[in-house]
Amino acid sequence: MQLILNQSVSTETIKLLCLRISEIGFKGYPVKDGLTFKINIPNADEVKISQLKSVDGVKDLVHISTPFKLASREAKQTDTIVNVGDVAIGGENLCVIAGPCAVESREQIRSVAEKLSDMGVKILRGGVYKPRTSPYAFQGLREEGLEYLADVKKQYGLKIITEVIDTHSLGYAQEVADILQIGARNMQNFELLKAVGKTNKPVMLKRGMSATIHDLLMSAEYVMSEGNMQVILCERGIRTFETATRNTLDLNAIPLLKQLSHLPVIVDPSHGTGIRELVEPMACAGVAAGAHGVMVEVHCDPENALSDGMQSLLPSQFNNLYQKINRIASAIK
Amino acid sequence: MQLILNQSVSTETIKLLCLRISEIGFKGYPVKDGLTFKINIPNADEVKISQLKSVDGVKDLVHISTPFKLASREAKQTDTIVNVGDVAIGGENLCVIAGPCAVESREQIRSVAEKLSDMGVKILRGGVYKPRTSPYAFQGLREEGLEYLADVKKQYGLKIITEVIDTHSLGYAQEVADILQIGARNMQNFELLKAVGKTNKPVMLKRGMSATIHDLLMSAEYVMSEGNMQVILCERGIRTFETATRNTLDLNAIPLLKQLSHLPVIVDPSHGTGIRELVEPMACAGVAAGAHGVMVEVHCDPENALSDGMQSLLPSQFNNLYQKINRIASAIK
Amino acid sequence: MQLILNQSVSTETIKLLCLRISEIGFKGYPVKDGLTFKINIPNADEVKISQLKSVDGVKDLVHISTPFKLASREAKQTDTIVNVGDVAIGGENLCVIAGPCAVESREQIRSVAEKLSDMGVKILRGGVYKPRTSPYAFQGLREEGLEYLADVKKQYGLKIITEVIDTHSLGYAQEVADILQIGARNMQNFELLKAVGKTNKPVMLKRGMSATIHDLLMSAEYVMSEGNMQVILCERGIRTFETATRNTLDLNAIPLLKQLSHLPVIVDPSHGTGIRELVEPMACAGVAAGAHGVMVEVHCDPENALSDGMQSLLPSQFNNLYQKINRIASAIK
Amino acid sequence: MQLILNQSVSTETIKLLCLRISEIGFKGYPVKDGLTFKINIPNADEVKISQLKSVDGVKDLVHISTPFKLASREAKQTDTIVNVGDVAIGGENLCVIAGPCAVESREQIRSVAEKLSDMGVKILRGGVYKPRTSPYAFQGLREEGLEYLADVKKQYGLKIITEVIDTHSLGYAQEVADILQIGARNMQNFELLKAVGKTNKPVMLKRGMSATIHDLLMSAEYVMSEGNMQVILCERGIRTFETATRNTLDLNAIPLLKQLSHLPVIVDPSHGTGIRELVEPMACAGVAAGAHGVMVEVHCDPENALSDGMQSLLPSQFNNLYQKINRIASAIK
Repeated sequence: MQLILNQSVSTETIKLLCLRISEIGFKGYPVKDGLTFKINIPNADEVKISQLKSVDGVKDLVHISTPFKLASREAKQTDTIVNVGDVAIGGENLCVIAGPCAVESREQIRSVAEKLSDMGVKILRGGVYKPRTSPYAFQGLREEGLEYLADVKKQYGLKIITEVIDTHSLGYAQEVADILQIGARNMQNFELLKAVGKTNKPVMLKRGMSATIHDLLMSAEYVMSEGNMQVILCERGIRTFETATRNTLDLNAIPLLKQLSHLPVIVDPSHGTGIRELVEPMACAGVAAGAHGVMVEVHCDPENALSDGMQSLLPSQFNNLYQKINRIASAIK
Repeated sequence: MQLILNQSVSTETIKLLCLRISEIGFKGYPVKDGLTFKINIPNADEVKISQLKSVDGVKDLVHISTPFKLASREAKQTDTIVNVGDVAIGGENLCVIAGPCAVESREQIRSVAEKLSDMGVKILRGGVYKPRTSPYAFQGLREEGLEYLADVKKQYGLKIITEVIDTHSLGYAQEVADILQIGARNMQNFELLKAVGKTNKPVMLKRGMSATIHDLLMSAEYVMSEGNMQVILCERGIRTFETATRNTLDLNAIPLLKQLSHLPVIVDPSHGTGIRELVEPMACAGVAAGAHGVMVEVHCDPENALSDGMQSLLPSQFNNLYQKINRIASAIK
Repeated sequence: MQLILNQSVSTETIKLLCLRISEIGFKGYPVKDGLTFKINIPNADEVKISQLKSVDGVKDLVHISTPFKLASREAKQTDTIVNVGDVAIGGENLCVIAGPCAVESREQIRSVAEKLSDMGVKILRGGVYKPRTSPYAFQGLREEGLEYLADVKKQYGLKIITEVIDTHSLGYAQEVADILQIGARNMQNFELLKAVGKTNKPVMLKRGMSATIHDLLMSAEYVMSEGNMQVILCERGIRTFETATRNTLDLNAIPLLKQLSHLPVIVDPSHGTGIRELVEPMACAGVAAGAHGVMVEVHCDPENALSDGMQSLLPSQFNNLYQKINRIASAIK
Repeated sequence: MQLILNQSVSTETIKLLCLRISEIGFKGYPVKDGLTFKINIPNADEVKISQLKSVDGVKDLVHISTPFKLASREAKQTDTIVNVGDVAIGGENLCVIAGPCAVESREQIRSVAEKLSDMGVKILRGGVYKPRTSPYAFQGLREEGLEYLADVKKQYGLKIITEVIDTHSLGYAQEVADILQIGARNMQNFELLKAVGKTNKPVMLKRGMSATIHDLLMSAEYVMSEGNMQVILCERGIRTFETATRNTLDLNAIPLLKQLSHLPVIVDPSHGTGIRELVEPMACAGVAAGAHGVMVEVHCDPENALSDGMQSLLPSQFNNLYQKINRIASAIK
């Protein structure tokens, strides 16, 4: 159910209404949808909630038909803008995230951060807790890597996105990260979703390899139902019968997610294709499909990268891509 | 194997070489690759072919490592341009094909043809032999439909593309069609591929629902091995676990096919998504990914279309798409 | 719609009813379902057909809700038994089909036929028209191969199943074959389905690599709607993300097809797995899942087979399998 | 690398060798393979390990070529038997696990436990921490549910298997559970795998929905690399394009896993199909394919089950299945 409030409603009334909702046995999630204030009440009993219709400031009570009680366009019609300091993700903005798959050393992350910062990139990616298929593969620099990220964050004024994989890594990473990333393999690690939902950090949620659009939105719902509404969705390729690409980047998901949800949608052509030469055309295609941004793996020495070298761009290659996607973003406006 | 000839080689020498190749027991396929003449000789025995190295006009003999002896970039490095009268498909050109899923009546096809022609569309699609999942569904107007296509072809000067499904339909359709379409379900109907390979009409080959990129190129090879080099590849969506879209339009295939092959690549966002609202963004994405053209279903009355109404655009909606993809084509140049 | 007739109804009445149905504009397909005679009338207009309710011998008129108007359990509740001479396929019988992927020479097919016949196998498989992914691969011995099959058919009294791929091959093959096979790649070659539907030979229809259960039954419907009710369904593996096996043999299809349809269901573990060591366990599993039979590739010299050697069993290996599936068939009765 | 030891080697020597391996910088995992003692040393440097060849008791040093350094048949040739009290899983034994999807109440679990115990079932399943797609769905009784499981464990002498989803649930569950289950969605939650790898409880690892056989074995490797060798693999269906079944139970995985690994393999036809009528035939098929056991959802009142009612069997239906799989197990021996 959703309570639609008068535009002039006061913060006190909203608080009061949430309290009343809670007394009835449900949970209210206030949201500002354009100029209108609303309170979403997932899975609420219509009869019980109806009594609130008479409260001063309440305009209407409507039913939300989708299972995405907080993530759907029904719940909020206007695009959500996730603000990371002075960087806005969503709406009309084109967000660019770049950096190496993994933080490998102080010097490695510093050199790539400097180059990306010079080009105008605002958000740096870099994994320190790495979920790898093999227990014997490089598992990330962990807290040491966070320290290096903290350094470049300070030095270049970059925002940092990094992956968390459990409560331990979450505890440490949230000290440094501006955006917490949930990787594809953990998209249905519901306990982890609840944990990041309890933080006040934006969360980038990557689509699982066999997750439907519906599954992805339900996982976003897990984060949001804990009170954290700053969720960014990320299409990064699904697993299909085609083996010529590492994954099948499913760009159809972009316009579809934008239709179904108010959350920003980012595309990751690096993991989505796994092939360096395909990263630029698919980044362009993602933006043309309407993505709010791209996340691209960039490494100063891809041949010697500890992970994902095959799909990493050199800074100069990334710069070409960067120019091109900006031109496309203008062309489709 | 591939014979590389001197630039000044005469047509007679090429003919003679092909004859010699044939006498040795293989088949030679001459091709002009930029300014260079070459003769591809699939599955030839190196020892036997080596004797031709001494023939005047032969510059070199090289090995083709891919299984696509005629369709691969190795076999021909420059983009193939398929010329359909004055319409060029491939290379730097952006080709737009539009029209209804099926020809339903003389008036239906005339009205949409007129509108599309007015907008500048040069190639009209319209199925008359319809491969339908159910034997009880509308199977197309067959020869009657071809007559209607012939009329609009004459009246509006449009080029016609229509699907063929067996030798019967091929016999009739090639009288009217400028391009013969092989549908997804027949992509591995090898006897049909051989049959269209024996015609002198351009062939648009749609990717099968579970066909890999490799499979698609091998099917193109079937057509080409019969001597017809005018093959256009078409990505139209693959079958995956995702059911939110009718198919999963696999745009990764576009840059990958362009890397592997010299043939033009077209994208069909109508069948690829099955959802009207997704056709425009995915057409844009396809062009941004590097497609040489798009094929879009347009109908003046989608609600009452006999097939695929859900994914058909109104002419006005198509016009928006048409403007947008042209802007994107400029942006990525 | 379906007309249910009195048990004592005469052949003349059935003929007369079919004529009346035809005059009204539909087509009637009489079927004996256990002791009851019925006439299925796909896509008929209820109002128009209702007038037949008063005809003497007509007991009831019922609606068929599935799209499989002839292939579904609704249309016919009792198992269909396809009789190939004295060999019965379907119902309680366990049918075993064995033989090489392709007929390669007179001696090759003779030697394997002899061994299989000695073991008690009644139906021999052997392809002579081979749909191969590459135009340069061995395409089968064609009419020459049919001649060899005709020989072993006569010599050992074996029934022959062989694949047809177009009207040409159909014309020749039906002179020799007892069962016509439609391969996976042609499962939605609807013109071919109609063509075999017009013959009086049993048809084995293999599931396409990306065909759903629904698609498979609709393709069976194509054959049946032409009047040929002797259709045998064959599960032979679907295309999934898993590449450790050639295909993913989908045994779930077996109990599901038996629930939805009255047609016999056969399993092909050779193509389904592509790995010799998996053929026996998956044949056993198929029978335990309720398959009416198995089709297995057997070759006297798999290492030198012209196709599918990797998945072919030696006659001795096949004999073990043969014993085992018979024990399982007894165990689940 | 793998050290092969003399049959008469003493426990002290093995300990000493492991210490030496550790000093060189690697980790040694001793294993008894039939009558032979071996020490597996994943990713060890051959040169460094070679010095151990001269140690008394060391017979040979061999290379393990697969990435599954502990889970592969190369690492251990004889079947691993996981002993859960007096119940043996693996080898020639047929293990049967049954019970409801979720523990719903004291009475619900008691009644089904009693019936299953009477039939001879030794291991009871019942989820108390439920990973559900929606945050608003029933999430399990958690510690309260564990208490109910502890009761029936005591009353009926049943072994208990239940799912753990994070360190919290693991802490509580291992007090009651005899086998810890890792669900499909957590198959690549590597931190959880490491955590259960540090316990001394057998672990049942369910294959993820889009996990290849290779992925599954790498996840088993995560558990084993922490020292816990008691891993049971479970095939429970993968995600494919087919939607007629909830998942596509991939029985090919069973003989393939048995070929590649020494670990026991169990099949779950309930989740694998999602359709009650398919559970029995697919359980039979699984056993015929060589599974070491089956896990089946049983509920005394499936219509009112809080989860998975559609795929749950009544105790009486389960009893039929139980008889049948035992007959099949005998038939294939």
